[in-house]
Amino acid sequence: MSKLKNDTFLRALRREPTDYTPVWLMRQAGRYLPEYRATRERAGSFLALAKTPELACEVTLQPLERYPLDAAILFSDILTVPDAMGLGLGFVQGEGPRFERTVRDEAAVKALPVPDPEDSLRYVMDAVRTIRGALGGRVPLIGFAGSPFTIACYMVEGQGTRDFLHVKTMLYRRPDLMLELLDRIARATAAYLSAQIAAGAQAVMLFDTWGGVLADGDFQRFSLASMRKVLEALPREAERADGRESIPQIVFTKGGGLWLEEIAACGADAVGLDWTVNLGQARARIGDRVALQGNLDPMVLMADEAQVRAQALRVLERFGPAAPGVGHVFNLGHGISQFTPPENVAVLVDTVHEYSRRQRSGN
Amino acid sequence: MSKLKNDTFLRALRREPTDYTPVWLMRQAGRYLPEYRATRERAGSFLALAKTPELACEVTLQPLERYPLDAAILFSDILTVPDAMGLGLGFVQGEGPRFERTVRDEAAVKALPVPDPEDSLRYVMDAVRTIRGALGGRVPLIGFAGSPFTIACYMVEGQGTRDFLHVKTMLYRRPDLMLELLDRIARATAAYLSAQIAAGAQAVMLFDTWGGVLADGDFQRFSLASMRKVLEALPREAERADGRESIPQIVFTKGGGLWLEEIAACGADAVGLDWTVNLGQARARIGDRVALQGNLDPMVLMADEAQVRAQALRVLERFGPAAPGVGHVFNLGHGISQFTPPENVAVLVDTVHEYSRRQRSGN
Repeated sequence: MSKLKNDTFLRALRREPTDYTPVWLMRQAGRYLPEYRATRERAGSFLALAKTPELACEVTLQPLERYPLDAAILFSDILTVPDAMGLGLGFVQGEGPRFERTVRDEAAVKALPVPDPEDSLRYVMDAVRTIRGALGGRVPLIGFAGSPFTIACYMVEGQGTRDFLHVKTMLYRRPDLMLELLDRIARATAAYLSAQIAAGAQAVMLFDTWGGVLADGDFQRFSLASMRKVLEALPREAERADGRESIPQIVFTKGGGLWLEEIAACGADAVGLDWTVNLGQARARIGDRVALQGNLDPMVLMADEAQVRAQALRVLERFGPAAPGVGHVFNLGHGISQFTPPENVAVLVDTVHEYSRRQRSGN
Repeated sequence: MSKLKNDTFLRALRREPTDYTPVWLMRQAGRYLPEYRATRERAGSFLALAKTPELACEVTLQPLERYPLDAAILFSDILTVPDAMGLGLGFVQGEGPRFERTVRDEAAVKALPVPDPEDSLRYVMDAVRTIRGALGGRVPLIGFAGSPFTIACYMVEGQGTRDFLHVKTMLYRRPDLMLELLDRIARATAAYLSAQIAAGAQAVMLFDTWGGVLADGDFQRFSLASMRKVLEALPREAERADGRESIPQIVFTKGGGLWLEEIAACGADAVGLDWTVNLGQARARIGDRVALQGNLDPMVLMADEAQVRAQALRVLERFGPAAPGVGHVFNLGHGISQFTPPENVAVLVDTVHEYSRRQRSGN
């Protein structure tokens, strides 16, 4: 594995000085890119794409060919873990993911295995290894997984949901069983992310897409605690051919702004924020305890160039000037929309780089 | 109109002492009640039910026959206003509301009328008058409307949405046009709620179901400002046969916990909160500036009696003991689920009443 040429992203996560604010975008390898749609077409399906390391590598690198992004993120899906736990993942055209089996009672929870990631998830580790080779040290590679509670939502509901009826029914009726389920998912996730790190991932991120639907108190008990369990089980450093490297951790709870202080204390190096949070206020609340990642509304990218520029500046200005011990990674507050005009992403990335360089030089 | 026998709800909104914590439930007249389903069956459709004052009155009173609730809320829908503005409301089986027309450009915005509520929305006013008569002063009647931004979401999207693609595209591309749209909706909503008050509504509530999807800064500019405009245009008192009565105002932004201080300063008497907010912390943040309404997760009602009781106590304990100038109205943090076992609602209402009486007497 080659020496890293651009470590701005990792430095920002470690709250070390950087020349500019690094930027990457959640779901940057995705349907808004015509070249992604072409590769997916060739693969035949989303799952075939995710399960073929060469194709997953190809789409992971596509946005880097177009834009000077500061990180690559493994092309995969958070639902690979419950799939490997035996639920049978499929995608229904126009409706999203659906599992063949759900987990709604004690027997189903107790039957869940903690899979060996180099066995049933080997295609992900192969993708990580392939991508690291193909990147040749251009930018770091982020590995990721869903938070245990988010995965539990899909496992209990069996598909996407608006009201979280089944998962919340289990949580309120059988909190003990929910904790047992979360514990199994946390162990599977820790093994999964550890294997991604061993395979070459240089930072890891937990996507807590649904933690924000929980009540205050329940978020801490069910989602945050299980994320902490995952993070604590991960190696903080990895042995590479060219020496040891530290592996920063990012957590992102969508809709978690009210709990920022508690999330910032969970052990991760950085906390992702969605657009409902004022970045300046967030920085004031957590000081230099963690780096912050975010937080542009992805729908800003549906506007014209001038608006994209103005809204990107607003995010950077709110975060405020660089300072010792403070770190900011620019990102969206959620995945990029499939309807995004690709040229707007170029405007966004350039604006973040140029303006943040000027912020640092005081011009 | 008869003298009010139970004014506990209105007293709590005015932050006056009460013997116990009053309780009502969002969507309390709804599908979880078999008698509601029977009336709706008779009406033929949801819209026919909402547009027939006698039937709207019948279902409004149904939950009061079962439970000692402290307020009635007009049975209606927030989409009656855009329907009266000419969009053509319909409901698609299993998919929810859908408009015949959308509002996505300048011409469509400029063509929107501000309807006379005693004309195209007369069926709502007739329902209010009928319900006040049927209530005979048992409990106060709440009138309501959607927030201008929430209504704009439906008008621009034409139906429910998960990504708010069209409405946010308009907001980011043409903020001026979005403000013009919100202004028209705000004027229509102010006229609508003023007419409800004149017809007999004794408190009014704005449901800002979607304000929480906006970015910090945009929420204040687009949703909160237009709610303030509505509230400022409403009469604070109404002349009744038996004298003048004050008309308290409630605003509820789902997912608005981060903005509590700003929402509490919008002029309303009370602020609704969802379950992501810790009520004790909310009380500490806003002191005695407004009363608070909420905030049990409706999914708690899917659990067993003991859990319903425990979770209701948790809400009451978090809010803390009664004190001069402080007001709490117990409610859910969102509408009650159609799958709720009706007997759990009885447990909830009784628990709130009994425990809050004990809280006040110090036992």
